[in-house]
Amino acid sequence: MKTVKIGLLGIGNVGSGAFQIISLNAASIAKSSGRNIIAAGVLARDKNKKRDIDINPDIITDDPDEILKNPEIDIIVEALGGIEPATTFMLSAMKNGKHVVTANKAAVAANYDKLTSAAAENGVQFKFEASVGGGIPILNAIDTVLRGNEFTEIMGIVNGTTNYILTKMTEEKLPYDVALKNAQELGFAEADPTADVEGIDVANKLTILIALAFGQYIKPEDIPTTGISKITASDIEEAAAKGCKIKLIAHAKMNCTGGADCEGCTGNGKLEYSVKPMLLPNDHPLAGVSNEFNAVFVTGNAVGELMFYGRGAGALPTGSAVVGDIIEIAKTIK
Amino acid sequence: MKTVKIGLLGIGNVGSGAFQIISLNAASIAKSSGRNIIAAGVLARDKNKKRDIDINPDIITDDPDEILKNPEIDIIVEALGGIEPATTFMLSAMKNGKHVVTANKAAVAANYDKLTSAAAENGVQFKFEASVGGGIPILNAIDTVLRGNEFTEIMGIVNGTTNYILTKMTEEKLPYDVALKNAQELGFAEADPTADVEGIDVANKLTILIALAFGQYIKPEDIPTTGISKITASDIEEAAAKGCKIKLIAHAKMNCTGGADCEGCTGNGKLEYSVKPMLLPNDHPLAGVSNEFNAVFVTGNAVGELMFYGRGAGALPTGSAVVGDIIEIAKTIK
Repeated sequence: MKTVKIGLLGIGNVGSGAFQIISLNAASIAKSSGRNIIAAGVLARDKNKKRDIDINPDIITDDPDEILKNPEIDIIVEALGGIEPATTFMLSAMKNGKHVVTANKAAVAANYDKLTSAAAENGVQFKFEASVGGGIPILNAIDTVLRGNEFTEIMGIVNGTTNYILTKMTEEKLPYDVALKNAQELGFAEADPTADVEGIDVANKLTILIALAFGQYIKPEDIPTTGISKITASDIEEAAAKGCKIKLIAHAKMNCTGGADCEGCTGNGKLEYSVKPMLLPNDHPLAGVSNEFNAVFVTGNAVGELMFYGRGAGALPTGSAVVGDIIEIAKTIK
Repeated sequence: MKTVKIGLLGIGNVGSGAFQIISLNAASIAKSSGRNIIAAGVLARDKNKKRDIDINPDIITDDPDEILKNPEIDIIVEALGGIEPATTFMLSAMKNGKHVVTANKAAVAANYDKLTSAAAENGVQFKFEASVGGGIPILNAIDTVLRGNEFTEIMGIVNGTTNYILTKMTEEKLPYDVALKNAQELGFAEADPTADVEGIDVANKLTILIALAFGQYIKPEDIPTTGISKITASDIEEAAAKGCKIKLIAHAKMNCTGGADCEGCTGNGKLEYSVKPMLLPNDHPLAGVSNEFNAVFVTGNAVGELMFYGRGAGALPTGSAVVGDIIEIAKTIK
């Protein structure tokens, strides 16, 4: 059986999740893919740090070039997070003829064109399923089996932290500050929660969804973005009185192009997009998505309405998407 | 741009849906796939029948060999339904070096091994996304991006007719007979509803889900199957009193293998499966799937719980899945 070697850049939450899955499910992965996938290099800031997972110390390095330039490595898994040095490392890996898998929404959103062009120029694959919706296989679906559709609308709950806070504010009638503090104590929110609560993380993900579904690159900073930090307990109460829930929604909608059969249509045929808290009626499929769960609602002109629901974060769910991308690439390596 | 020619066997609901999508979305399909996909042959029982869709009469034939042996055709789309002659036609197409796409759950479930082996022997691709869950891209997800997982459980509402009937019985307190008659009048149920209401259609789909997710071929007739024809208005009422809904569920669960860390475990490590009406608590994600909608709930040992929701039937949703398969194959034809 062909062995495919991967190099992991970063061994935090996502990197260790992917590493664990590759070991735990090695037999079933080999059976279904026909490939033996093994980690041949791991970049870590501190080589000697004690870790919960069992990694052969010989493959751990603090020198990125030992992985990026290792001729034995076929696929680089970038799991560092942040725009830099992640982008530079991914571009360097591609130049060295290596396929790249990443979970890094910030880097993909900021440098979408640069990264996809570099992959094409170097004849390598670039996959980033884990960057939107964690374990939910939404990007692959949009990019493969749903390609018979022209997409008309996407609505997503794609940030677990804010969805957890809004759920607690709704179900336990907590004020924003208390719900945020709870989320921080449970590890669902970071010490500096700005990127989550101000919608910046969601805007990054919407950039990626729009690029794949509508073929347009809209920079995250060009997406009108409102977070949840101004939502009050009385906003939630007023929504409830109207039979609605407040959800932070990544939204993109292709406007109608008008035309004779579209009565009273004022459509301009342009894409509208925003990240903002929206009132959803309680019977909307996205209104039932609670706590740290994510869901993406997609409408295509053939398939109609589809929804994908699952865990949007966590080492193993996000690792599942990373490993799925690795397997898809590995199958093409002869 | 490379042109890929398809031959359609059957131009009923699914065949005409796929045909329409290929015409309607030709530009976007060409842009995303780099392939021009055109129908070069259509098998119809009556060549001269008046149709709602605009097909060049020169490509319509009532002789299957004109399509199966046409050297210009790359992909055969089987949309006849039923086990035979569909299976024979698909095998013949594969022997002639043609890739095969089908929506035909009965033929795939009955002849899974024969069809997948024939595809492998002839070096062609065989895809059947539309056979389970209509437009919902569940099979591709299980077979590609979720392959990092070992699946532990699948629960699906995969028959729109019975879900419609159960929804009407629940929401409008109708007796079974009246709900069935309504469904027949609206075209959601056939004149002879046996295959739907007795769970036979669902068992076919569960055979396919089990084959992909668990790598085992269980014949549909070996799946313990109970339909909904014995469900009464008082069953529905009793369920409601317990805070539950009755749903017809395709269920497969990999039993625990026991082991030291599994306290009190009586697992035998074997797969359990059934098709039967089940009581689901109202807050179970599948309980909210109403009317003709389908949904599949999948649990993997890495990704955790995932749900896919959408339209399980209809010309365009099912056509979307057929065209998705066509595009995926077309991209591999150089």
